[in-house]
Amino acid sequence: MSRNDVTEKIMTAKVLNGISWASVAEKVGLSKEWTTAACLGQMTLTAEQAAIVGDIFGLDADERKWLQVVPYKGSLPTAVPTDPLIYRWYELVNVYGTTIKELIHEEFGDGIMSAIDFSMDMQRQNDPKGDRVRVVLSGKFLPYKTY
Amino acid sequence: MSRNDVTEKIMTAKVLNGISWASVAEKVGLSKEWTTAACLGQMTLTAEQAAIVGDIFGLDADERKWLQVVPYKGSLPTAVPTDPLIYRWYELVNVYGTTIKELIHEEFGDGIMSAIDFSMDMQRQNDPKGDRVRVVLSGKFLPYKTY
Amino acid sequence: MSRNDVTEKIMTAKVLNGISWASVAEKVGLSKEWTTAACLGQMTLTAEQAAIVGDIFGLDADERKWLQVVPYKGSLPTAVPTDPLIYRWYELVNVYGTTIKELIHEEFGDGIMSAIDFSMDMQRQNDPKGDRVRVVLSGKFLPYKTY
Amino acid sequence: MSRNDVTEKIMTAKVLNGISWASVAEKVGLSKEWTTAACLGQMTLTAEQAAIVGDIFGLDADERKWLQVVPYKGSLPTAVPTDPLIYRWYELVNVYGTTIKELIHEEFGDGIMSAIDFSMDMQRQNDPKGDRVRVVLSGKFLPYKTY
Amino acid sequence: MSRNDVTEKIMTAKVLNGISWASVAEKVGLSKEWTTAACLGQMTLTAEQAAIVGDIFGLDADERKWLQVVPYKGSLPTAVPTDPLIYRWYELVNVYGTTIKELIHEEFGDGIMSAIDFSMDMQRQNDPKGDRVRVVLSGKFLPYKTY
Amino acid sequence: MSRNDVTEKIMTAKVLNGISWASVAEKVGLSKEWTTAACLGQMTLTAEQAAIVGDIFGLDADERKWLQVVPYKGSLPTAVPTDPLIYRWYELVNVYGTTIKELIHEEFGDGIMSAIDFSMDMQRQNDPKGDRVRVVLSGKFLPYKTY
Amino acid sequence: MSRNDVTEKIMTAKVLNGISWASVAEKVGLSKEWTTAACLGQMTLTAEQAAIVGDIFGLDADERKWLQVVPYKGSLPTAVPTDPLIYRWYELVNVYGTTIKELIHEEFGDGIMSAIDFSMDMQRQNDPKGDRVRVVLSGKFLPYKTY
Amino acid sequence: MSRNDVTEKIMTAKVLNGISWASVAEKVGLSKEWTTAACLGQMTLTAEQAAIVGDIFGLDADERKWLQVVPYKGSLPTAVPTDPLIYRWYELVNVYGTTIKELIHEEFGDGIMSAIDFSMDMQRQNDPKGDRVRVVLSGKFLPYKTY
Amino acid sequence: MSRNDVTEKIMTAKVLNGISWASVAEKVGLSKEWTTAACLGQMTLTAEQAAIVGDIFGLDADERKWLQVVPYKGSLPTAVPTDPLIYRWYELVNVYGTTIKELIHEEFGDGIMSAIDFSMDMQRQNDPKGDRVRVVLSGKFLPYKTY
Amino acid sequence: MSRNDVTEKIMTAKVLNGISWASVAEKVGLSKEWTTAACLGQMTLTAEQAAIVGDIFGLDADERKWLQVVPYKGSLPTAVPTDPLIYRWYELVNVYGTTIKELIHEEFGDGIMSAIDFSMDMQRQNDPKGDRVRVVLSGKFLPYKTY
Repeated sequence: MSRNDVTEKIMTAKVLNGISWASVAEKVGLSKEWTTAACLGQMTLTAEQAAIVGDIFGLDADERKWLQVVPYKGSLPTAVPTDPLIYRWYELVNVYGTTIKELIHEEFGDGIMSAIDFSMDMQRQNDPKGDRVRVVLSGKFLPYKTY
Repeated sequence: MSRNDVTEKIMTAKVLNGISWASVAEKVGLSKEWTTAACLGQMTLTAEQAAIVGDIFGLDADERKWLQVVPYKGSLPTAVPTDPLIYRWYELVNVYGTTIKELIHEEFGDGIMSAIDFSMDMQRQNDPKGDRVRVVLSGKFLPYKTY
Repeated sequence: MSRNDVTEKIMTAKVLNGISWASVAEKVGLSKEWTTAACLGQMTLTAEQAAIVGDIFGLDADERKWLQVVPYKGSLPTAVPTDPLIYRWYELVNVYGTTIKELIHEEFGDGIMSAIDFSMDMQRQNDPKGDRVRVVLSGKFLPYKTY
Repeated sequence: MSRNDVTEKIMTAKVLNGISWASVAEKVGLSKEWTTAACLGQMTLTAEQAAIVGDIFGLDADERKWLQVVPYKGSLPTAVPTDPLIYRWYELVNVYGTTIKELIHEEFGDGIMSAIDFSMDMQRQNDPKGDRVRVVLSGKFLPYKTY
Repeated sequence: MSRNDVTEKIMTAKVLNGISWASVAEKVGLSKEWTTAACLGQMTLTAEQAAIVGDIFGLDADERKWLQVVPYKGSLPTAVPTDPLIYRWYELVNVYGTTIKELIHEEFGDGIMSAIDFSMDMQRQNDPKGDRVRVVLSGKFLPYKTY
Repeated sequence: MSRNDVTEKIMTAKVLNGISWASVAEKVGLSKEWTTAACLGQMTLTAEQAAIVGDIFGLDADERKWLQVVPYKGSLPTAVPTDPLIYRWYELVNVYGTTIKELIHEEFGDGIMSAIDFSMDMQRQNDPKGDRVRVVLSGKFLPYKTY
Repeated sequence: MSRNDVTEKIMTAKVLNGISWASVAEKVGLSKEWTTAACLGQMTLTAEQAAIVGDIFGLDADERKWLQVVPYKGSLPTAVPTDPLIYRWYELVNVYGTTIKELIHEEFGDGIMSAIDFSMDMQRQNDPKGDRVRVVLSGKFLPYKTY
Repeated sequence: MSRNDVTEKIMTAKVLNGISWASVAEKVGLSKEWTTAACLGQMTLTAEQAAIVGDIFGLDADERKWLQVVPYKGSLPTAVPTDPLIYRWYELVNVYGTTIKELIHEEFGDGIMSAIDFSMDMQRQNDPKGDRVRVVLSGKFLPYKTY
Repeated sequence: MSRNDVTEKIMTAKVLNGISWASVAEKVGLSKEWTTAACLGQMTLTAEQAAIVGDIFGLDADERKWLQVVPYKGSLPTAVPTDPLIYRWYELVNVYGTTIKELIHEEFGDGIMSAIDFSMDMQRQNDPKGDRVRVVLSGKFLPYKTY
Repeated sequence: MSRNDVTEKIMTAKVLNGISWASVAEKVGLSKEWTTAACLGQMTLTAEQAAIVGDIFGLDADERKWLQVVPYKGSLPTAVPTDPLIYRWYELVNVYGTTIKELIHEEFGDGIMSAIDFSMDMQRQNDPKGDRVRVVLSGKFLPYKTY
């Protein structure tokens, strides 16, 4: 048994029972972004969170234990994603990568925007010309240290 | 001569003369994100914008023409970026890719978040535990059409 | 269970029962292109469409639910396809890629031809020197926005 | 000297002198698609065509000879294109690849759609919801022979 | 079930029952090259051919249907083959690739040698210094069309 | 200076002076296949052959020496060739690879067809349905030795 | 069933019963190098050899037949091996590759050292500073032929 | 300037002046294998060795300094070598890789054969059936340590 | 059965029974680093060590034998790791690779730091600004030998 | 001009003038590890540090400005390094990757060891059995945040 087996079981239960990620997040008490990532095998749950998720998706005791183990992260089957929705994000990194780098360095100096001390929030943005996806990313700036 | 030559000349002028992207954007009259991407060879300028940029970076008439040609986009030398700052963004796509996909589909149905009808805004977010990089992405949702 | 399992079941039923894609499309009431892509795990069906497809291919209730979930798209096992028919299309993109780019930009300016707001129509074109495959592609032009 | 040098010289002359592909095609007397591909180093010109193209772009006698040599074809720098406009075409092959294969085989049997005995026509399709790019591809069907 | 399953079953029956490809080809009434390729999942059989092959290898009715479906072609597990016999052919393409290209173009002009309207014949060539493998390839020349 | 520089000089002289490979081979006194490969930097010439080739293409004394050095072989810029003519040969290896392997082993047992003790002959094959490229390959069979 | 299944069965029997390759080679009557390669699915056994190997590892009649079939060779899961012992050999090829090429050509002229008419012998070489692995490789030199 | 520049200069001098590696090694006083690798940019020379090599190939004082710097090793342009002579060595690692691993472990236990405390000796082995290349490799066995 | 099966069984037992690597190491009597690597299929255990590990994780007699076989090493599914924690180590090699090389060569001359005669020790380093991971690596320096 | 040009100039000056990294670090007043990485184009210097480095290596005013610009990091030419010294470090990540992950998570929970708030110290460790390279790595632990 592995975390992947649990993730597949969660996805199957979600599809067959029509469970929404928003409803899972509400019960877990965290954002829908973190909660979904955790259910998809990218984050680590506490025993309490695993119990809530286990009840929602019908997981047994062993499966709940796997949810509490730090997973081997990386959710995509290929280095360049083939799915069009995910590819557009890869395209942003590819087209705007040097721009992102230049502007963060201009404001903060040498360092990175953390992907660990990080949060993401996605919302529908109503727009008469067609609704938009609005995503707010917030990552702590970590400066390179000299030593 | 090619657009890459112009991009390299812009970068060299920026470094040697200490020009900031924010100041360029202010003169162009557009966001610092779009302006920087354009100067880095990813976007197409109008004749007026090219004249402003050309004055700032000391470009001749031919070089200004290249700025008005649609470039072959893609700013990274490898499919998986080696630079740590840019890699963190690739890591976000890799770790959160399926999460992003699930949540956009849950809210909007099948389709994508456009990387063309798109904007990005980066700001410093003051925080007593360490300042953060706050990025707002906004992309039009484009639903798959049946036919 | 996953969408791939449903796709394989559809393909097996198609082969063993001699079902044509044209007949499926007629019953679904959409083009044969969209319908085939949906049956091959690339598009999302409504409940009504899933019921029709389910009846044709003998799918049970759970399998019909998977047809209504947005799939992870990408139908090819390798980045460069090995199958000769599909490779010829890859070759078109490779040989004519810069031509396509030049001509769309010459007519429309910077932007892309959408692969989402898109349709495709394939027909036999009778020709005394050997019949031809005629394909009409239609994609909305999406201009890059400045911001 | 190589064909690539001639292609770069053509592109530079085009940008600096504002030459349109449509005007080149008109003078050559062939479609804008074939003519552009030829100028971009993908097709072979006759001596007469090379003379016309040479006059337009200011090529000398040696450069005109290179236009008449069969080039090493393939116009993209990477196996998966990074440019968003060209990527959308790669995405079509990736998402619709198996669909294209199924439908051509359903109509014609085993074989391929030729990329050699082939033509392409791109046009603007006016549409009140946003103009579209309409592309007609026509390739001879070539059946696999038994022997 | 898939065509691969049928191919594996054919290979197993061949090994365990000591069937030769030459004998299969004789019964099918076509060359040993085409017949072997078909049995290995690369070509499409008619109902009559599938019945003959099915009798030889003990295939049931469903498996015989799969033989009549156009397969997803490509018989090698890696882009550069690791098997020494097959690698030598890849090496020929790699070392002689540009030579083949030059000589076909010198004789025929721009175009390709078809891999579809194509035949191959392999024979033992007796030689006192060691027997040789003699292979005759014959492919229709397909010229690029202007349009 | 390197062998590549000599190859490029040969190609340039060939294009600008309209030299045919057949005429070079006739003067060298070997097949057009071997001679072309040698001129393209894949084979090693003797001093006499280098003198003949040097006279034809206008090479100086140093360049003639490079022709007599064993080159680093491999004539293609990518592992999977993008040029359509050369790709068709790669496709033959990919589609027919396992067939070639099976039939050589059926006739000869375990071993390979040599790509070193090897010859190739290309000819035009007149055909009322369209002329064909006929290629005869002959390679010594080399059996695996036990020890 | 496939040759891989037989290889896995041999490995499992070896581990569980503590069989040494040296003892297998002694019974087969050939070198330990060839015998091990054959048991690992890289060489082809005669019926007599297969019977001996089958008795040692407890293979049934069908499995012994697979040992007599020429295998698809290549024993490594990745193009660059990850296992440190095997990697050191890859490193030798990488670091000394051009040296090996230069010295064989200096002694023999253009051609290769055969990997088919080849033998390998590994022995412990006692050394007070630490025992060494001594490997003797012997491959027939095969000169390129002109034609 | 870099070590690669010095290597290219050495190769050019070798070709134009007809210098043999054996003669260089004799003057340096080390094996032809180590000496050739050093001249090809893979090993580090002492000041005395660099002086000898510099005299042979006509290197100036700066170039001799580069010979004394530890180079970035790796002599091949691609991960899988395209040159047939070098490929045969890669093929040995690929086909015999698991055999080499099994036999060294059987004799020595877990560890590696060093590629650093290592020597190689190549000789012509006269043989009436065709001369052979005989290579003796000797590498210290390094056992994995527990800790 | 293979070593991978044993590794998976160990991981499952660890998760379901809440076993810590530190406790395993204490019972084995070696460092936690070596012990964990061994349990994860990267090192070879003695019979005594395998008995201890087998008791802890509930392995049967056959599984304990696999622990004593030298494994095919390499613990990551992709050449560039996707997991963020492991990626940071890859990033260190990528960013500091040339620095590490320069400094070891400056101190020791040409050679390597052994990854075989090697040990690693990880400890928590308390720090008021946030605890740190402190890792001490110790590898024997192995100088390149001349011969 | 680019940072790479400056790095190459520094390396050339170092080789030709025999400058040691230790002496540079002493003048800069930081560790030899950070200083070397900065000189090799991986870190960003202040104006004061750039002045010191510029004096040592003879850099002009423009080159000193490039040292103060955040570089595009990544010091290796291939994803898997070919140089043996650097490869051993890649091997450590490959063989010990999952071990490192397990032990850091066992001690700290989910998160990473920072490669930004990080230091490295290399020292010679005298040892009668052969001196060792001792490296101390220290990186802040960064826990994944929930949100």
